[in-house]
Amino acid sequence: MAKYTIGLDYGTNSVRAILVNVANGREVSTSVWGYAHGEKGVILARDPNLARQHPADYEKGAELTIKAVLADAKKKVKAFAPEQVIGVGVDTTGSTPIPADEKGRPLAFQKKFARDPAAMAWLWKDHTGIAEAEEITALAAKIRPEYLAKCGGTYSSEWFFSKLLHCKRTAPKVFEAAHTWVECADWVPAMLTGTEAPNRLTACVCAAGHKAMYNDDWGGYPDKKFLRKLDPALAELRDRLQDRAHAIDTAVGGITAAWAKRTGLPEGIPVAAGAFDAHLGGVGSGIAPGTLVKALGTSSCDMMVAPTNRPLADIPGLCGIVKGSILPGYFGLEAGQAAVGDIFNWFVDYIRPTDGSHETLTKQAARMAPGASGLLALDWNNGNRTILVDQRLTGLLLGQTLYTTPAEIYRALIEATAFGALTIINRFEEYGVKVKRVVNCGGIAEKNPLVMQIYADVTGRPMYVSRSAQTCALGSAIAGAVVAGKKAGGHGSFKAAQKAMTGLKARVYKPDPKARKVYARLYALYRRLHDAFGTEDFSGGLHNVMKELLEIRAAARK
Amino acid sequence: MAKYTIGLDYGTNSVRAILVNVANGREVSTSVWGYAHGEKGVILARDPNLARQHPADYEKGAELTIKAVLADAKKKVKAFAPEQVIGVGVDTTGSTPIPADEKGRPLAFQKKFARDPAAMAWLWKDHTGIAEAEEITALAAKIRPEYLAKCGGTYSSEWFFSKLLHCKRTAPKVFEAAHTWVECADWVPAMLTGTEAPNRLTACVCAAGHKAMYNDDWGGYPDKKFLRKLDPALAELRDRLQDRAHAIDTAVGGITAAWAKRTGLPEGIPVAAGAFDAHLGGVGSGIAPGTLVKALGTSSCDMMVAPTNRPLADIPGLCGIVKGSILPGYFGLEAGQAAVGDIFNWFVDYIRPTDGSHETLTKQAARMAPGASGLLALDWNNGNRTILVDQRLTGLLLGQTLYTTPAEIYRALIEATAFGALTIINRFEEYGVKVKRVVNCGGIAEKNPLVMQIYADVTGRPMYVSRSAQTCALGSAIAGAVVAGKKAGGHGSFKAAQKAMTGLKARVYKPDPKARKVYARLYALYRRLHDAFGTEDFSGGLHNVMKELLEIRAAARK
Repeated sequence: MAKYTIGLDYGTNSVRAILVNVANGREVSTSVWGYAHGEKGVILARDPNLARQHPADYEKGAELTIKAVLADAKKKVKAFAPEQVIGVGVDTTGSTPIPADEKGRPLAFQKKFARDPAAMAWLWKDHTGIAEAEEITALAAKIRPEYLAKCGGTYSSEWFFSKLLHCKRTAPKVFEAAHTWVECADWVPAMLTGTEAPNRLTACVCAAGHKAMYNDDWGGYPDKKFLRKLDPALAELRDRLQDRAHAIDTAVGGITAAWAKRTGLPEGIPVAAGAFDAHLGGVGSGIAPGTLVKALGTSSCDMMVAPTNRPLADIPGLCGIVKGSILPGYFGLEAGQAAVGDIFNWFVDYIRPTDGSHETLTKQAARMAPGASGLLALDWNNGNRTILVDQRLTGLLLGQTLYTTPAEIYRALIEATAFGALTIINRFEEYGVKVKRVVNCGGIAEKNPLVMQIYADVTGRPMYVSRSAQTCALGSAIAGAVVAGKKAGGHGSFKAAQKAMTGLKARVYKPDPKARKVYARLYALYRRLHDAFGTEDFSGGLHNVMKELLEIRAAARK
Repeated sequence: MAKYTIGLDYGTNSVRAILVNVANGREVSTSVWGYAHGEKGVILARDPNLARQHPADYEKGAELTIKAVLADAKKKVKAFAPEQVIGVGVDTTGSTPIPADEKGRPLAFQKKFARDPAAMAWLWKDHTGIAEAEEITALAAKIRPEYLAKCGGTYSSEWFFSKLLHCKRTAPKVFEAAHTWVECADWVPAMLTGTEAPNRLTACVCAAGHKAMYNDDWGGYPDKKFLRKLDPALAELRDRLQDRAHAIDTAVGGITAAWAKRTGLPEGIPVAAGAFDAHLGGVGSGIAPGTLVKALGTSSCDMMVAPTNRPLADIPGLCGIVKGSILPGYFGLEAGQAAVGDIFNWFVDYIRPTDGSHETLTKQAARMAPGASGLLALDWNNGNRTILVDQRLTGLLLGQTLYTTPAEIYRALIEATAFGALTIINRFEEYGVKVKRVVNCGGIAEKNPLVMQIYADVTGRPMYVSRSAQTCALGSAIAGAVVAGKKAGGHGSFKAAQKAMTGLKARVYKPDPKARKVYARLYALYRRLHDAFGTEDFSGGLHNVMKELLEIRAAARK
């Protein structure tokens, strides 16, 4: 009898559940539920940096979507019984920390905090902690440079301690009421398994390692001395965080009786430790040593894994290097571009060329030969993540004449993101992490063959596309299959699970040698601009042009 | 009794006549006639570089428009009599050479050549002689660098000898049939005065000096040895060109009986030597030592005059330095930007942002504070004329984010042209030509107060706008008044004529000190980009990025 697992994928606006056949990865059923609170699930405020979610949506979302996929499976699969479901995996956004009480219940569940944004989940894209992030970065640079070396050299306002410190300073009542803080990726599995209480909670190494400076090498989270310099309350809080963080091969517990009743799932089936959506998307795309998985959406997340039994340098410019964060037993390496689809969306939605939909522009751009426009762009409209780690860089377009068309610009923007992608590949390889295969997933990989072809031509490598259109949820389902174990009908390892459950689409984008040659010339020019405007070792005095413009802008907008 | 002169202004698509009161510059009457041949007066062909005009349109245009303004004046001015008209001036496009027979009649008037584009007027914007221009530039650089020093370092495909040489090579029958070649600016006055025959023709120094390497210092046109190296036929032709070229204070003759009959003008009234439209626009805008006149249209023509009794360096980057080309007795200095309005038109007509008319974008851009967009652009979409003299430079836009709007870009493009304007002003002053006053004329100066205000804020100087909306035709009428002379009721000098007949609009755009300060910072950044991408002395290796892109483009389009 076939066995199934469920992958739960908590996104920014909705939660998705999929029910997957563990033998072949077939996605039998899918259910999506849009969060009820705020605008499309996000609670906003006058401060444009604020973005919160209500944890009640996480709870309700699990119930509704799990019920829905089970009901749907009954219709689709002959003689399907919920008992055939053997495990659950969970991925979420992050860093999305939630202040919780002594039982590990979110403060937002208490009546007095129900409408206080500070007591809710601090969504990944909440940037209220900008000042705190700078403070943490400065302190770490001074006394704990090793912390920064593992997270790309800059601690972000999107991350765990920036948010906590900002809460302490701006919403002290919430901070005081919070016994602890839990990442969304940890809280959802805990909720399903009744392990929310701090002494029972399992923290995942994905969130802890990438967003909270956790590393086994220095004893877990940042030391108390460091935290005390930021705020004594943070040092005290450290005692109430988990000692150890775990990878996704850890079962945090079994589905409780209450949740079994609520959803129809069998009681006691294991739930895997959570992880971030992109990382489980890597798993669902078949990530393995030598395989780069690119999750291409509004931005890009470029993931690789490297064996832990060989030394690995701190690769400059990477967003994070964390043992076990993607696959257990491997270093998880995360790089990325701060904007990919967002740049194309900007051109279509903000510049709004007449008749310039993505479809029309793509069609016109596809007819152009590489280099025929004379244009060259930098992909920095949202700053540069890898390899420059500089949010304050901005876009550049060069080569316009009096006849330049929107489609030419659109193509140049695609090419710019391809050049950025190649720069990341080169950086991995410069530090000994060979990129033998590139697998793409996410909306753009699915929908835009032109982007894929240009990526192939620019990088000189075939572009594969992940078979699943829901790689994050599939990755979670894979984790569910591994924690269920071979005996229960699951899998004995991620390698075995990925082999059975992941795959590639038949269409492979192969580099065209002629285009490749042109792009080699264009990439050399891209690197000249990249280094001139992005690095200080360039002698021409251009590296701070963009920053000076931002300073002038800030003054002008005062 | 009031005296009047007529200014004839031959443009690219039409000819305009105005009848002006010499005492106060009042423009009593205007008539415009669109040329009958070709598309809006321009004969085109499959070769996009080809642009010709039929000289018959020049003849018919003079007749129709002069008749029209005289008839109109009779209606408007009590007891007006054509005898009150005391002189005529003419301006035209250029270099627009016409092949002519032994009597100085255009070959196109002969039946066998009537439809041969090579026998027509080679309009200023005809670029068929690109290869010949490069050849002339290379030869001059080698053996006659002094020729290039007076015309900005590069001989253009738009100019006299490039066109003649191209005709010799591609339409030898026409070249052989041509006894001589006459600039449009010379032929129209000659036609009206019956002085077309080569031994009677008056060549104007404006065309000869700016477009045909004529200079009294080296004995007029380029020497025969030089011309022979290009083609022996050019050396022979030199004998059939005029020995000396003249300024606009020279009367080339009087209106013939035939033209008096044809138009109603008094027979014998003097016609001034012709000049180019922009230069007579300078005169009509009150050009004088210390006054920079900016003719702002699709491109800009920036004119100054400097006394000839003081030494003047060859100012690098100027398009031309010619004695008497603008005002008699002064060096005429011409600089310019290869695109101004054309850049704004490109954005509106090619990028076509939805709801993005010039009016809408200007209105939105006017609400923005200087520097508030974080954008910076180079004004090089059509290359750079002054000070880099490099047609193969291209545009650049820097500072885009994911929220950059069309109006922000539009403003950045306006600012870029303002920075280009300041660079020209600085260049004049670096070489001792003080800019005490800036007077603007042309469509943009008339119509776009935002552009004028930004120019004031960027340059830190008040922007004046010429009172007349037809400064070219007014300048021609002024020349007519001067050649008529004081005795006939005209003027004894250009100074006196300009004082009486030109003026400024009441609205002056004064620099705002706060904006000025921001723009000083932005201009410093503009110069960094300008020097990095435009000059070889910049060490960063960026100066050839745009050129390499053009090479790649050319290869891709093959």
